[in-house]
Amino acid sequence: MLTDAEVMSLVSSCKILNYKLEAVLETPERGVAIRREMLSLKLPVSSALVCLPYKGYDYSKVMGACCENVIGYMPVPVGVAGPLLLDNQQFHVPMATTEGCLVASTNRGCRAISLSGGCNSKILADSMTRGPVVRLPSACRAAEVKIWLDTSDGFSMVKEAFDETSRFARLEKLLVCVAGRNLYIRFQSQTGDAMGMNMLSKGTEQALRRLKQHFPDMEVVSVSGNYCTDKKPAAINWILGRGKSAVCEATIPGQVVKEVLKSSTAALVDLNISKNLVGSAMAGSIGGFNAHSANIVAAIYIACGQDPAQTVGSSSCITQMEAAGPDGEDLYISCTMPSIELGTVGGGTNLPPQQACLQVSPVLLHLMSFTSMLGVTSPNQPGENARQLARVVCATVLAGELSLMAALAAGHLVKSHMTHNSLLETALLMCDVTFVLLSVL
Amino acid sequence: MLTDAEVMSLVSSCKILNYKLEAVLETPERGVAIRREMLSLKLPVSSALVCLPYKGYDYSKVMGACCENVIGYMPVPVGVAGPLLLDNQQFHVPMATTEGCLVASTNRGCRAISLSGGCNSKILADSMTRGPVVRLPSACRAAEVKIWLDTSDGFSMVKEAFDETSRFARLEKLLVCVAGRNLYIRFQSQTGDAMGMNMLSKGTEQALRRLKQHFPDMEVVSVSGNYCTDKKPAAINWILGRGKSAVCEATIPGQVVKEVLKSSTAALVDLNISKNLVGSAMAGSIGGFNAHSANIVAAIYIACGQDPAQTVGSSSCITQMEAAGPDGEDLYISCTMPSIELGTVGGGTNLPPQQACLQVSPVLLHLMSFTSMLGVTSPNQPGENARQLARVVCATVLAGELSLMAALAAGHLVKSHMTHNSLLETALLMCDVTFVLLSVL
Amino acid sequence: MLTDAEVMSLVSSCKILNYKLEAVLETPERGVAIRREMLSLKLPVSSALVCLPYKGYDYSKVMGACCENVIGYMPVPVGVAGPLLLDNQQFHVPMATTEGCLVASTNRGCRAISLSGGCNSKILADSMTRGPVVRLPSACRAAEVKIWLDTSDGFSMVKEAFDETSRFARLEKLLVCVAGRNLYIRFQSQTGDAMGMNMLSKGTEQALRRLKQHFPDMEVVSVSGNYCTDKKPAAINWILGRGKSAVCEATIPGQVVKEVLKSSTAALVDLNISKNLVGSAMAGSIGGFNAHSANIVAAIYIACGQDPAQTVGSSSCITQMEAAGPDGEDLYISCTMPSIELGTVGGGTNLPPQQACLQVSPVLLHLMSFTSMLGVTSPNQPGENARQLARVVCATVLAGELSLMAALAAGHLVKSHMTHNSLLETALLMCDVTFVLLSVL
Amino acid sequence: MLTDAEVMSLVSSCKILNYKLEAVLETPERGVAIRREMLSLKLPVSSALVCLPYKGYDYSKVMGACCENVIGYMPVPVGVAGPLLLDNQQFHVPMATTEGCLVASTNRGCRAISLSGGCNSKILADSMTRGPVVRLPSACRAAEVKIWLDTSDGFSMVKEAFDETSRFARLEKLLVCVAGRNLYIRFQSQTGDAMGMNMLSKGTEQALRRLKQHFPDMEVVSVSGNYCTDKKPAAINWILGRGKSAVCEATIPGQVVKEVLKSSTAALVDLNISKNLVGSAMAGSIGGFNAHSANIVAAIYIACGQDPAQTVGSSSCITQMEAAGPDGEDLYISCTMPSIELGTVGGGTNLPPQQACLQVSPVLLHLMSFTSMLGVTSPNQPGENARQLARVVCATVLAGELSLMAALAAGHLVKSHMTHNSLLETALLMCDVTFVLLSVL
Repeated sequence: MLTDAEVMSLVSSCKILNYKLEAVLETPERGVAIRREMLSLKLPVSSALVCLPYKGYDYSKVMGACCENVIGYMPVPVGVAGPLLLDNQQFHVPMATTEGCLVASTNRGCRAISLSGGCNSKILADSMTRGPVVRLPSACRAAEVKIWLDTSDGFSMVKEAFDETSRFARLEKLLVCVAGRNLYIRFQSQTGDAMGMNMLSKGTEQALRRLKQHFPDMEVVSVSGNYCTDKKPAAINWILGRGKSAVCEATIPGQVVKEVLKSSTAALVDLNISKNLVGSAMAGSIGGFNAHSANIVAAIYIACGQDPAQTVGSSSCITQMEAAGPDGEDLYISCTMPSIELGTVGGGTNLPPQQACLQVSPVLLHLMSFTSMLGVTSPNQPGENARQLARVVCATVLAGELSLMAALAAGHLVKSHMTHNSLLETALLMCDVTFVLLSVL
Repeated sequence: MLTDAEVMSLVSSCKILNYKLEAVLETPERGVAIRREMLSLKLPVSSALVCLPYKGYDYSKVMGACCENVIGYMPVPVGVAGPLLLDNQQFHVPMATTEGCLVASTNRGCRAISLSGGCNSKILADSMTRGPVVRLPSACRAAEVKIWLDTSDGFSMVKEAFDETSRFARLEKLLVCVAGRNLYIRFQSQTGDAMGMNMLSKGTEQALRRLKQHFPDMEVVSVSGNYCTDKKPAAINWILGRGKSAVCEATIPGQVVKEVLKSSTAALVDLNISKNLVGSAMAGSIGGFNAHSANIVAAIYIACGQDPAQTVGSSSCITQMEAAGPDGEDLYISCTMPSIELGTVGGGTNLPPQQACLQVSPVLLHLMSFTSMLGVTSPNQPGENARQLARVVCATVLAGELSLMAALAAGHLVKSHMTHNSLLETALLMCDVTFVLLSVL
Repeated sequence: MLTDAEVMSLVSSCKILNYKLEAVLETPERGVAIRREMLSLKLPVSSALVCLPYKGYDYSKVMGACCENVIGYMPVPVGVAGPLLLDNQQFHVPMATTEGCLVASTNRGCRAISLSGGCNSKILADSMTRGPVVRLPSACRAAEVKIWLDTSDGFSMVKEAFDETSRFARLEKLLVCVAGRNLYIRFQSQTGDAMGMNMLSKGTEQALRRLKQHFPDMEVVSVSGNYCTDKKPAAINWILGRGKSAVCEATIPGQVVKEVLKSSTAALVDLNISKNLVGSAMAGSIGGFNAHSANIVAAIYIACGQDPAQTVGSSSCITQMEAAGPDGEDLYISCTMPSIELGTVGGGTNLPPQQACLQVSPVLLHLMSFTSMLGVTSPNQPGENARQLARVVCATVLAGELSLMAALAAGHLVKSHMTHNSLLETALLMCDVTFVLLSVL
Repeated sequence: MLTDAEVMSLVSSCKILNYKLEAVLETPERGVAIRREMLSLKLPVSSALVCLPYKGYDYSKVMGACCENVIGYMPVPVGVAGPLLLDNQQFHVPMATTEGCLVASTNRGCRAISLSGGCNSKILADSMTRGPVVRLPSACRAAEVKIWLDTSDGFSMVKEAFDETSRFARLEKLLVCVAGRNLYIRFQSQTGDAMGMNMLSKGTEQALRRLKQHFPDMEVVSVSGNYCTDKKPAAINWILGRGKSAVCEATIPGQVVKEVLKSSTAALVDLNISKNLVGSAMAGSIGGFNAHSANIVAAIYIACGQDPAQTVGSSSCITQMEAAGPDGEDLYISCTMPSIELGTVGGGTNLPPQQACLQVSPVLLHLMSFTSMLGVTSPNQPGENARQLARVVCATVLAGELSLMAALAAGHLVKSHMTHNSLLETALLMCDVTFVLLSVL
């Protein structure tokens, strides 16, 4: 066996490629260790990496799939909020975060929901998108291609090519946009339980190949023309949806609003208009009509092996509140989220710790319990697990909205009670989701 | 010492509060272990949590600061891209991600930059914001308050109150927006090396208290009126900036474009217009004029203890490309990012692994090297470390843009060469940032 | 016959209703005259109205159709630009405007186009929309309605009701958006040659009545829920189109760019990126990726009896430019306009002067020439005239873009030549579309 | 004197330039007549122009100022709405429109306001903008220029140059935006009573000249970089204002809501949320949070000689409604409009009929009454007339919102009452602002 020094020397002389260290050494962990050592030598303080853990981790599922040039792993604290009573099931929601109060606050929201008999959700739509850009010799020619793609003949031909690339992909819709002689084509398809970008890419490429046979003067500029739109803010996703579109609602009795949320329905309804509707409107927001859905989305995404960069689009949400009940003291709240991009298979969900989190909430267990009870091999309808995860995301966002909005509405009142309680005040000011009194939990 | 069963019984009977487990038991880790055990009992598959690690982690810095109801930690693989030659310094950029090819692709971008003599950056602005909503009896009265706040007298009074809440906070600007009788006031201040939301909240609250003394008929509706705007897409941040505004640029010689990026300047410039400018325009994007800046931002944010929910605003970016050089074969590229929200102290940066990553790149080492050289206790100018981190983020985004855009531009050509190379094709389709050939790294 | 004084006295005592004056007096003009007289008495300067003409106008077509409480008419100067060589036909485009240089500048653009062999256009889509808001008892119920409307059964039932309200209306598509328990439904239909808002309103109301029979717990909140979206900026129109979607293109030889437009292809392409793409992106625009399409749209709309308030959506346009030709010295330009809302029948087009303008360009004459040549009674395919008008609007916008962009590109150069020509400079600065040298026309 | 035929022959042979016909003939009208004749010859139906009036109009003020290639004028019917009780003054608002019901409906809103004791307004800000684009050799250099312009030294130098170009222009603020090596600079200044684009252009050009002396490596790309933003939808105007920013409010007693508006406060408040806030949010609108402000803006603009293309930005408006009064039966309504671009001197306001309309409302009479009462030569504070016109626009929009919203809210009820009244129904469906019963006026 080569010594570390020998390996490092071979890397320096390019006889071993740095990025292949895990693959060529006895264990991936040794590869990571040597890469760390080599990196440390270049750093001003060679002990810098000591606090970044790397041992005892199974790198085999990471290699060639989830990360390259690995030097360890970042441990992100995972808290749990719940039970979240959603569609008559209880969920425990794992949240990976370093933002103080976020889990506690979400937990308070879950408690308010549970005491109110739970919340209910619906999946409104489910399809991933890919939006390549192609080019024709002229705008009029691009228009012809668009008009043809808008016919059922055109659609069928493209769909046939698209669908043969996967057993899940089934082209549902095309949105074809002409911009001069450029053509942007938004392919839309269900993707089973996968988030689906790769499935869409593959199908799109195949479809474009077929399209090019039909229109040989068409040039494929790029398989993504930002018309998907992935990980960038875009009205197209807000309006037409991307991934899962979900809505969730709950009615919180006046007493729960008062005792658990320490607020009043009137104050919350008013605040929701002033902040989530008018405030966001004045700030020029598209899709940001909520208090902090991104906090919840990012925390669940990191815990559950989703792509946290997709927080950008997945956190789009409009939160609405109304007075309800005979005397208008109950609070009706809904969260509508048109573009939750996620999956329960593929990518980061393949890693065991992320899988564990997916199972903390009964999402994947669905499958298991069905399996054990029904004795069937097929776990669940394709896509059901992913859609269930989207419902959980939407419901947890609702819990988070409830709690933070209540805390904000109570803010100035609470404040006046604690002039002498600087410690608590400090605690409150420590967090963005602020003002959540731990004592209410 | 109580047995686990005894503790769990005490929790069930509410004699020990679940969320205080870490605090009341001998070690936080035992608290976490018992919480896991109690949670496991409620799950359909009691072994679900086994794969989520929790041992050997220092929970003391998490407690009361970064997470509640902790049940373990999520290990996110950390890869390193670089060296990144930025402003004549070399940086090694840690990226925590489960998206395959992302680190490798970014790394290729870094290599292209290094071979081109490096990239250069500037900080254009630096201030965090908070946008409360207050209400006056009438719109005309709200207008009076606005007009007064727009005077230097009004500003001074509010600033005095604001500034006394922290030694870093210095109110720089107010943007006062009337919407009927609601008033949205965007407070803007530097925040040293902290991301600064809490500093802003504190100063804002104090300023509002002073303002209310002057206008007793003013009612504070909420310390955040979504006019900040935090973690929601909003044109206001794109136009006026939030956190750090940075720009970074590089000129890549034609030969490097060809040999490292496997593309051509003409193809890249053309693709940038079709995808990042026109494509995003057609999709109704505000601030999303780039290929995948969110990927890089999220990965660095998770590695460096930033708030990943702030990827929403922090990833706003416009990528521009031009032909340069005597024969137009060199590629001039810039990335402009107006709202990078981050800090090098506070929040998740206090945790040792996250600190380690901050030190992998010489960001914090600045301080150390200065310290050792100058023997001064004060590490660096307040804010310099955070601004340096923002430059690194912006430059790494540029590296990421270079590499992905090149991969996309080459896409259809590459494809034709590998009809028989289905394995490689599969590999390419596996990742969102796709099409990056590992062999080019 | 009553004297003026007697009539005025009857109006004062409400025995004649002011707004019925035209109808009850011998001639509408006398009604208008008396209304003016009564109004003048209330004004500080009783002669104020003298300069507002009212005589010699046929009020019969205005009454009960186009305007109420009439006191005269506003004469807006009409200039003509052209001939515009579009799709191998020549058009003379009437523009009603008080903005100096606008007609002259557009005319220069037309000349450049004609010298280049003309421009070509395509209609990409043609349908008007109406977006009512309805409400269900719960969000889950709203989701059920949406899901049902997305089925072919649901669509068919609604379509049947919609289609029976007009011989032109044929429901093509529904976009159903859930926001909590509100449902926004965007109805989309062709409307023959009418702009079509009323046709859509009528069909939508009928469809909602049918829908309510099916879902009796549905409440119609408003026939317009701003989801149409009419006369307000909205990404939904930019992305999905409204009214006519058109594209127009031309290739201007380098020599024409130089001699007629006094600019160069390189300068224009560069300016288009900097101003129309990047500049608008930085300003947070959705759909405003052009130099001044609203100028042309408003001027044609006023001349041709369109609704000038629809300039808001109809002027959405992306202008693209590329170098073309063997040596890259020719200029390829296109304008894409997804939401041109207009008609050639109904509304203001019924008034004779507006009709005259519609006929100045051969739009309506199409019909006549076909009639005379073919001896058929049916004038033209329904909708063809309106679509032709949309093409003319799009092509004239292209002419306007060409000329203004060229003027701006030449701006600083031109300026240096005329230090001593203050008169001309003044002339140039007088207009928004500025810098167009009349001498170049 | 030459015969018509002789003149036309001279034009055909280019001895007289077509666009100079007015100037070289005895009277401008004869020039217009001959141009019409020449145009008619080219039209398929030579009598097409007959219905477009041209006689009896004073072309002298149009020539060289407002329109070129004139062939007549378009008579747009002018109705009057009012009296509008605003800030304790009565206004009669001229509206030039061909949209049936618009004036009647606005009039109903005015009546509701008057019966409620009037509405009140405030000007929140007043300054026009121009946003050129300049370019530096590098992004870092562009950053330097930005940072320098953000200093008081930089601002002062630029301001000095800007201010010397007009006695009204006084540079107030710069917003400097870096996008790569492009720099977008938004100049902001009051402009007296002029709309001010030309004043801004002139000042901006001078300022750029001075700036170029300081930074000789700076290149002026265009005096407008779409960062103004003029006549294109843009968040920058919505957030930072352009022209006049105004707010107007009124409280309508429950009885007036019921009897004049035929609706209820509860229904209106609810509809405002569902349509103007949530509906526009779902449609991806920026600044379009109203029912139909563009209708009112366009009609007043055409009547008063404003630039109707500026309806695009000037109609941005958020309409808010709340229940008010002891029992919540009164309706509090406000309209906030941040970017009303208009003037009372220059452009189309110089034409006598447009001037007459400006005087119908006491806008210009301010001046006159002050003059006559005080015997002073100075008419009014510079800018006061224009600001007053902006208040009137904003208040009339409020009247229009009140009436249309009430009509929409009552819509389905009204409908059920008139099953047998198909005539009325037809009348209602005839107009976009629909459903306004003339009988309620």
